[in-house]
Amino acid sequence: MEGVVDHLAFERNKAQFDVEEMKIVWAGSRQALEISDKMARLVASDPVFKKDNRAMLDRKELFKNTLRKTAYAWKRIIELRLSEQEAAMLRFFVDQPAFTDLHWGMFVPAIKGQGTEEQQQKWLPLAYKMQIIGCYAQTELGHGSNVQGLETTARFDPKTDEFVIHSPTLTSSKWWPGGLGKVSTHGIVYARLITDGRDYGVHGFIVQLRSLDDHLPLPGITVGDIGMKFGNGAYNSMDNGVLRFDHVRIPRNQMLMRVSQVTREGKYVQSNVPRQLVYGTMVFVRQTIVSDASTAMSRAVCIATRYSAVRRQFGSNNGGIETQVIDYKTQQARLFSLLASAYAFRFVGEWLKWLYMDVMKRLQANDFSTLPEAHACTAGLKSLTTSATADGIEECRKLCGGHGYLCSSGLPELFAVYVPTCTYEGDNTVLLLQVARHLLKTISQLGSGKKPVGTTSYIGRVEQLMRYRSNVQKGEDWLNPNAVLGAFEARAAKKVVLCAQNLSRFTNPEEGFQELSVDLVEAAVAHCQLIVVSKFIEKLQQDIPGKGVKQQLEVLCSIYALSLLCKHLGEFLSTGSINPKQASLANDQLRSLYSQVRPNAVALVDAFNYTDHFLGSVLGRYDGDVYPKLYEEAWKDPLNDSVVPDGYQEYVRPMLKQQLRNARL
Amino acid sequence: MEGVVDHLAFERNKAQFDVEEMKIVWAGSRQALEISDKMARLVASDPVFKKDNRAMLDRKELFKNTLRKTAYAWKRIIELRLSEQEAAMLRFFVDQPAFTDLHWGMFVPAIKGQGTEEQQQKWLPLAYKMQIIGCYAQTELGHGSNVQGLETTARFDPKTDEFVIHSPTLTSSKWWPGGLGKVSTHGIVYARLITDGRDYGVHGFIVQLRSLDDHLPLPGITVGDIGMKFGNGAYNSMDNGVLRFDHVRIPRNQMLMRVSQVTREGKYVQSNVPRQLVYGTMVFVRQTIVSDASTAMSRAVCIATRYSAVRRQFGSNNGGIETQVIDYKTQQARLFSLLASAYAFRFVGEWLKWLYMDVMKRLQANDFSTLPEAHACTAGLKSLTTSATADGIEECRKLCGGHGYLCSSGLPELFAVYVPTCTYEGDNTVLLLQVARHLLKTISQLGSGKKPVGTTSYIGRVEQLMRYRSNVQKGEDWLNPNAVLGAFEARAAKKVVLCAQNLSRFTNPEEGFQELSVDLVEAAVAHCQLIVVSKFIEKLQQDIPGKGVKQQLEVLCSIYALSLLCKHLGEFLSTGSINPKQASLANDQLRSLYSQVRPNAVALVDAFNYTDHFLGSVLGRYDGDVYPKLYEEAWKDPLNDSVVPDGYQEYVRPMLKQQLRNARL
Ligand SMILES: Cc1cc2nc3c(=O)[nH]c(=O)nc-3n(C[C@H](O)[C@H](O)[C@H](O)COP(=O)(O)OP(=O)(O)OC[C@H]3O[C@@H](n4cnc5c(N)ncnc54)[C@H](O)[C@@H]3O)c2cc1C
Ligand SMILES: Cc1cc2nc3c(=O)[nH]c(=O)nc-3n(C[C@H](O)[C@H](O)[C@H](O)COP(=O)(O)OP(=O)(O)OC[C@H]3O[C@@H](n4cnc5c(N)ncnc54)[C@H](O)[C@@H]3O)c2cc1C
Repeated sequence: MEGVVDHLAFERNKAQFDVEEMKIVWAGSRQALEISDKMARLVASDPVFKKDNRAMLDRKELFKNTLRKTAYAWKRIIELRLSEQEAAMLRFFVDQPAFTDLHWGMFVPAIKGQGTEEQQQKWLPLAYKMQIIGCYAQTELGHGSNVQGLETTARFDPKTDEFVIHSPTLTSSKWWPGGLGKVSTHGIVYARLITDGRDYGVHGFIVQLRSLDDHLPLPGITVGDIGMKFGNGAYNSMDNGVLRFDHVRIPRNQMLMRVSQVTREGKYVQSNVPRQLVYGTMVFVRQTIVSDASTAMSRAVCIATRYSAVRRQFGSNNGGIETQVIDYKTQQARLFSLLASAYAFRFVGEWLKWLYMDVMKRLQANDFSTLPEAHACTAGLKSLTTSATADGIEECRKLCGGHGYLCSSGLPELFAVYVPTCTYEGDNTVLLLQVARHLLKTISQLGSGKKPVGTTSYIGRVEQLMRYRSNVQKGEDWLNPNAVLGAFEARAAKKVVLCAQNLSRFTNPEEGFQELSVDLVEAAVAHCQLIVVSKFIEKLQQDIPGKGVKQQLEVLCSIYALSLLCKHLGEFLSTGSINPKQASLANDQLRSLYSQVRPNAVALVDAFNYTDHFLGSVLGRYDGDVYPKLYEEAWKDPLNDSVVPDGYQEYVRPMLKQQLRNARL
Repeated sequence: MEGVVDHLAFERNKAQFDVEEMKIVWAGSRQALEISDKMARLVASDPVFKKDNRAMLDRKELFKNTLRKTAYAWKRIIELRLSEQEAAMLRFFVDQPAFTDLHWGMFVPAIKGQGTEEQQQKWLPLAYKMQIIGCYAQTELGHGSNVQGLETTARFDPKTDEFVIHSPTLTSSKWWPGGLGKVSTHGIVYARLITDGRDYGVHGFIVQLRSLDDHLPLPGITVGDIGMKFGNGAYNSMDNGVLRFDHVRIPRNQMLMRVSQVTREGKYVQSNVPRQLVYGTMVFVRQTIVSDASTAMSRAVCIATRYSAVRRQFGSNNGGIETQVIDYKTQQARLFSLLASAYAFRFVGEWLKWLYMDVMKRLQANDFSTLPEAHACTAGLKSLTTSATADGIEECRKLCGGHGYLCSSGLPELFAVYVPTCTYEGDNTVLLLQVARHLLKTISQLGSGKKPVGTTSYIGRVEQLMRYRSNVQKGEDWLNPNAVLGAFEARAAKKVVLCAQNLSRFTNPEEGFQELSVDLVEAAVAHCQLIVVSKFIEKLQQDIPGKGVKQQLEVLCSIYALSLLCKHLGEFLSTGSINPKQASLANDQLRSLYSQVRPNAVALVDAFNYTDHFLGSVLGRYDGDVYPKLYEEAWKDPLNDSVVPDGYQEYVRPMLKQQLRNARL
């Protein structure tokens, strides 16, 4: 790819599978690979999209540079007449959070999902051409997770046929919306609808925020940026904003009225469109987050794997060549379980795409039967994959030793930009509690004969699972998918049944839920891990072409499952799903699986097909030429502009010369 | 303390213990509390030490500001005639990494520990007055963990009685030393000593790097900063450096010659000072790191606890007051186990101080018997406490929801500045492997009748421990220190014995060690956790005055131990140390302990006695007045200097107006 001499060629030659075929598997299809490859190269080869100086810019420079990249990307999208899919890919490879993420990712989908036909016809063309730029203004200073607690009001004034949007308290200030601080001209603003003397709870409204002439905030609107966030570049290229309304008036028809409406007279009426439609949007957004998790995880793993093959430390006492750190078993255990997770999340993300389509098809046919399950499942997988990915990125950084701490490794940025995913679109703990509620409900409905569907269907076999004892007898038995599935199903089922039993001891079920919530979260995690494992296994039941490709995936699938089993061993043992002897066999088997991955490790991360531009990491360079480039990068730091640093005369010299007494400090 | 209205007064009133007495326990003594309190206030009240704009400065501004603070701090130290302890405290509360950390923390101790009397007399007075500034230049681009692999050479030239320091390869460039990049005039440089035709391995040399006249690098020396690191401010105030030597000559007497010397003729001779003395320095440095871990953890916990008491979310359907998030059991489980860890690390750190003194006393009496154990113990505790603290800080950030992601929360900075502790002074995995080696050796020597000492003495009871079965029968039994100690000892002993047994199956023990290294790391962690638990328990056997103080600590000790037990349940169960029923009782007991901590939580973090300046967090403010201050902080961001952002005319307007085609981007 990029380098002239390939320092990792000897690693690539070891691979026991067809990397090009694996690239297709990773991308999802040959066509998806071609598009992503084309877009990645387009971005990588264009100097406007350079990003290696990102950590060195101050906030204003960074922000201005982001505006430039965004405008330029849009220009290229138009010039090259890119398809929607291509445009999204291009934006993705630009790899810098910007207001467009919210415009395309939240503003447009909200209008599509919650706007009437008429509203869609009015607003979507403007949004599609970016004649207006929109954000998604839900969270407030005082309320994030609890959306029903939002304080902003939208009071209907029948005299003028308008809503009056107002921020009654300081804590009602909108706070966090991306793109709001400096750029958006419009926002979907969530506010309590008050009409006819009643508070109808939180609804969405399209509100113009800035003038389309001079970009100044409209009267009654106070808006700004909320300040620096984690990391150097990272999310600081985004203008997360604060917004206050002082009795701002909007026409009645700017309430999003697909599911409920306010009439000219101020009557609140429900439309005949099912409310559940909103869940469809959530399923969609969270499914994207899961697939982004696999991207972020794979990026970090790619960097750490390549560098671990370059880095040599110890193992030679006679001046000979040292051991590659990737050959240490501790390094392998940490790294390869994350490599396996990247693939696992990829496939569960792929499956979630299918699930979303399935849900939408059913909704159109007024079939809501799978919706609660699909909703719980995406909520849980969002939580599971983002938490694991955030931790995984930091682990990859540590796997790179000291050099991982440099911005030029790319890992600090990747971490800082990634971690809020654990919080937005639902705090991960709050989501797991929702999953737990769904599981309890599923259990409680068993009695009434309601058959659990989809990812909860194993709960229908609960009686059998309660008696489950693994029959693994030797290490290789753990390679059998049924052995793995059995253990994971038994553990999940027993955890949730145990919770339900403990809960029944409380007279007030809500109190019981609160009291047992730690156990409930564990049960939810067990359930979600089962989903990921089972979708990986299902993937392997498909036909997967390419020499050795399927074999590699089988190894990774076993690693994913068995490393989880070892990590959560307490639950597998205490539920009696497996016994200590079987645990020990799983541990031995895992070690041998690491050895099987070892020769394929570099090729397995090559299969992600990431350009050096996208990786943005000296340590993860395709050609492995790490040291000269690290050395080169160092000198670019602004501190190296002068040999003697600014401040020497005023502060260092007086110290050395014992002249501080008279120094002006 | 700082606020006028105390929004957390209602929480403080709930406390069931004497906070002032707890402050003394935390500080170590009344006198230590007084000094730290005085120094903290001194720093907090001085505008030069302001740090709330830290995340907004660019690298050069940040660095210059650090030079200023450092010079000013030194000036104040002299003016106020502060004692060594006070000076160290003052520097600590300035809370910004700087070259002085290395000067006082590594350069001076290295000369003290490895220099001859004569060398100490020459160099220490210069260093004490800061007439020279020193760094510690060990790590190279190619070698960090493997110190024996360093490539820089120091070749003795008998003609001139000098050493020639040279960087023979790119990878031999010194890389990482703090204070090196822009400030240090001198460094302790580690290089392979070559004399008399032989390579004697790595030794330390005092090398002048910059002219004391004009601060320019001396001839033959190339030196600079290695570039941006993780986080906004964080470690970027430090000039970690790169350094290359082109045949730089230094006088022979600048080799640190306490343990081995080169004679005028170039003969290498060992002095009669025992080599083991170097380990003393390591024990010292790592003991400091453990106590810093308790500081960093407590800081994060203080912020998250106060904010969790301020933050309300859900729990009211009728517009009434919502639930404080600290009342959710999931929040408590995550937060209180970290609160308990902060206290646990404090006490084990205190004990390590004692251990260091004990070791030094013995060394002076030529008693090396406890050194290997003390060395393994500090290595392990460094690893355990820093890993837990790094994870703990990030968990505290997540516990603050979205607002934790803002720099004004203080948590992103705290994380970014803390994480390298897991890597420097020994990579945490490499250290655990050292501990494991020591444990295996201890086991293997049992046969020859050698009695394990200190923290390994429980291994002397291994036969008894192998048969151990916990006799816990009801939840409260877990409050008995012996029940806890028994389970932790049994688990640790069984883990290490199991490793030793598995190892004996390999014909090549080194190969076996590599193959089983993941299990060995687990055994080492089990051993280290036992140390922390047992030192906490020992602390509680002392007399601790103050109403309710000891009771609170007992609760925290139980939480620390039982939450570890639940987290590592697989090991406790698979070793048969406890059974599933007992595990379930521990889980129940833990829940009830959280309820006991709950009313005391805010007071327990008040006991750390941190000023708002030191915390540097809007969310962690003593007075709990979070929202108005968050709002206020936002407007200080440079992006808010203008209402319409820089870049609007060039990039945003053309987009909105469909005029990108002709825009110059
Ligand atoms: C980078 C970033 C971008 C964002 N972009 C947008 C945007 O574009 N538009 C927008 O509207 N918002 C946005 N947000 C806001 C985001 O949606 C919220 O931060 C998120 O919903 C979490 O809510 P919170 O901050 O109120 O957390 P809180 O709910 O305050 O969480 C604090 C703690 O309380 C716990 N907790 C809360 N409720 C419960 C409960 N019932 N049971 C147990 N524990 C509980 C949580 O687990 C957490 O530990 C963004 C946030 C970030 C960080
Ligand atoms: C902020 C910061 C400040 C620093 N300050 C200084 C300073 O002032 N002076 C100075 O001299 N140095 C300094 N250092 C360097 C620091 O001491 C090294 O980074 C540290 O020793 C780790 O070594 P490494 O970077 O070579 O990691 P590596 O050894 O390259 O580690 C990479 C990976 O390999 C694994 N690994 C390595 N060896 C083994 C093994 N035998 N078995 C199993 N796994 C192994 C590690 O666990 C890790 O996962 C600093 C570093 C940082 C980040």
